[in-house]
Amino acid sequence: MAVTYELLKECPETGARAGILHTPHGQIETPIFMPVGTLATVKTMDPRDLKEIGSQIILSNTYHLYLRPGHELVKEAGGLHSFMNWDRPILTDSGGFQVFSLGDLRKITEEGVQFKSHIDGSKHLFTPERVMEIQNALGSDIIMAFDECTPYPATHEYAKQSLERTTRWLKRCKEAHKNTEKQALFGIIQGGMYLDLRTQSAEEILALDLPGYAVGGLSVGEPKDEMYKVLEHTVPMMPKNKPRYLMGVGSDDALLEGVYRGIDMFDCVLPTRIARNGTAMTSHGRVVVRNASYSKDFTSLDHNCDCYVCKNYTRAYLRHLIKCNEILGFKLISYHNLYYLLNLMRNVRQSILDGTFAQFYKENINKINEGMGREKCRS
Amino acid sequence: MAVTYELLKECPETGARAGILHTPHGQIETPIFMPVGTLATVKTMDPRDLKEIGSQIILSNTYHLYLRPGHELVKEAGGLHSFMNWDRPILTDSGGFQVFSLGDLRKITEEGVQFKSHIDGSKHLFTPERVMEIQNALGSDIIMAFDECTPYPATHEYAKQSLERTTRWLKRCKEAHKNTEKQALFGIIQGGMYLDLRTQSAEEILALDLPGYAVGGLSVGEPKDEMYKVLEHTVPMMPKNKPRYLMGVGSDDALLEGVYRGIDMFDCVLPTRIARNGTAMTSHGRVVVRNASYSKDFTSLDHNCDCYVCKNYTRAYLRHLIKCNEILGFKLISYHNLYYLLNLMRNVRQSILDGTFAQFYKENINKINEGMGREKCRS
Repeated sequence: MAVTYELLKECPETGARAGILHTPHGQIETPIFMPVGTLATVKTMDPRDLKEIGSQIILSNTYHLYLRPGHELVKEAGGLHSFMNWDRPILTDSGGFQVFSLGDLRKITEEGVQFKSHIDGSKHLFTPERVMEIQNALGSDIIMAFDECTPYPATHEYAKQSLERTTRWLKRCKEAHKNTEKQALFGIIQGGMYLDLRTQSAEEILALDLPGYAVGGLSVGEPKDEMYKVLEHTVPMMPKNKPRYLMGVGSDDALLEGVYRGIDMFDCVLPTRIARNGTAMTSHGRVVVRNASYSKDFTSLDHNCDCYVCKNYTRAYLRHLIKCNEILGFKLISYHNLYYLLNLMRNVRQSILDGTFAQFYKENINKINEGMGREKCRS
Repeated sequence: MAVTYELLKECPETGARAGILHTPHGQIETPIFMPVGTLATVKTMDPRDLKEIGSQIILSNTYHLYLRPGHELVKEAGGLHSFMNWDRPILTDSGGFQVFSLGDLRKITEEGVQFKSHIDGSKHLFTPERVMEIQNALGSDIIMAFDECTPYPATHEYAKQSLERTTRWLKRCKEAHKNTEKQALFGIIQGGMYLDLRTQSAEEILALDLPGYAVGGLSVGEPKDEMYKVLEHTVPMMPKNKPRYLMGVGSDDALLEGVYRGIDMFDCVLPTRIARNGTAMTSHGRVVVRNASYSKDFTSLDHNCDCYVCKNYTRAYLRHLIKCNEILGFKLISYHNLYYLLNLMRNVRQSILDGTFAQFYKENINKINEGMGREKCRS
């Protein structure tokens, strides 16, 4: 198999676990946050910046790369790793979330999804077979099944139809996937917020014996507690010897809560998106650098952070850059935000290995909840 | 004196010379190109990127920093070096060029220039005294006199009045400059394209015995040959034991021609500005990365360049980034363009030290002229 999961340690009091994901482009220490590089670049970040902050795997996007520059071109470049100068593992999203988000621009049939490009309105068809072909051309280490991300809210009837289509499409994906030696296909469990449907979806998806599984259809606007209930119900059904990926989640509180419930992998555009708006994620809550109160604040973004940005730049300078729309400002805050999440996950993992996660969780979740709410975060 | 010039070697066949500029923040090997950091950041570039490509000094801008974030704030931050995390030398432009460029928004009197901010229309007055006060607050190693950059074209009468005002203002600048131990005031020779007026200006400015001198009012739209004629006339009047700075020039051909005529220092926004439009400066001419012809070009930007970007990225990838307005694209091309000019100047300097500049000039100026024209380039 292209990707295998090695379980190292489980927390006795919670669902948290530490492991290693073995991939064709190297090992990933889990639990892990994956920075999102939608268009073959994690916005503002050079690959060597990503390595410096300890990114072990990044995510890129089938829908966006299919439209620009086109998967055939990426294939000619030697694949996505070579094209974007990133030699560590890559996971590609299937484009399912993006095409469903197009609203009036798309039409769902049993065959697949017809949609119009958000760039030029040109017509396209994504089917499970086509999406596998595209991801095979991209050459990412982990490829995601073409699923329907069930909208929120959805009726029980719709959520059931939708998850059953996702299962049928997954079978077609598995059939069509041409490069199982070097690329691992992950299935996605759907079912909306209905626990009986999550059970049905999990049973159908897990029966296909894939190298990894994701929980999809969460972080789509539902209250936080609903998401945690779905995780508490679904994750225990998932096998221990396979990685578990919670899609589209990237706030610090949700990472902690997800790990607590047994999740190994997370991704979200949140840290880089809010950075470009001048908002930093810190150990004392969100810092909206643009605020006038920081104009003469000559301290670092996060007083507990030892990243390059916090060691070298002040809030006053970062505010100046953001106020002037200077690219360096977007870059430095993106750098810090990603470091903050990756470092949080390193500490989480260490606490699991040390057998102190339950305590770590308790100490940190309260601190985090004081400073912030949760935001919707999908590309 | 805050800044002194040490002449190391002169080219016997041309005016070219190699030297060292000693400043409070370290030595600068001349001739040198100075990247422009208008708003306390060389656009897209982190200071450690600048060090990696060998930037020895950068330029920043009095007008822009006065408006945002304000020189008092920069002073509170410990000065511009500390504010922007750059511990090497900084030269600040006086703002003269910028306020004169405001057109209808400014009014010139003997006292100074009244102008309205390009950001919010607020009213301000720049006088020689005020401009010294601002630059003293910024704490740059080299500060420029408040001059009038005579427009092109100008009548002989206007150019004469203008240069004489520049002289009177320089005297007031010298009088008002409060930090001569740590900041060197450079005078600026004006006179438009009139050689007799250049003589008059040079005599008046040089009589003030300053630590360095600039040739101003060039690269303002005049034909290239006019600029070179003015340099050929003016530079020989300038003292050998002081640095000579040609303001606002940054195309590779003009750097070579300037060095040939005895110039030591250059600055221009050109390399970073055209980078953000997707244009690379290379040893085989300008490469407009956006062009469709590069969509499947998996070679480097400049086949003779060994910079980080050329070693790691293809034209196809850079084109993709630029087409998608990805910040990393602007950054990588800015990085390469600055490297290209700094590396050109390193090679120029070495050839002067080796006694082979005349040959170096001949070989390179033809190659460069094949591939490009010259562009107007001021911030």
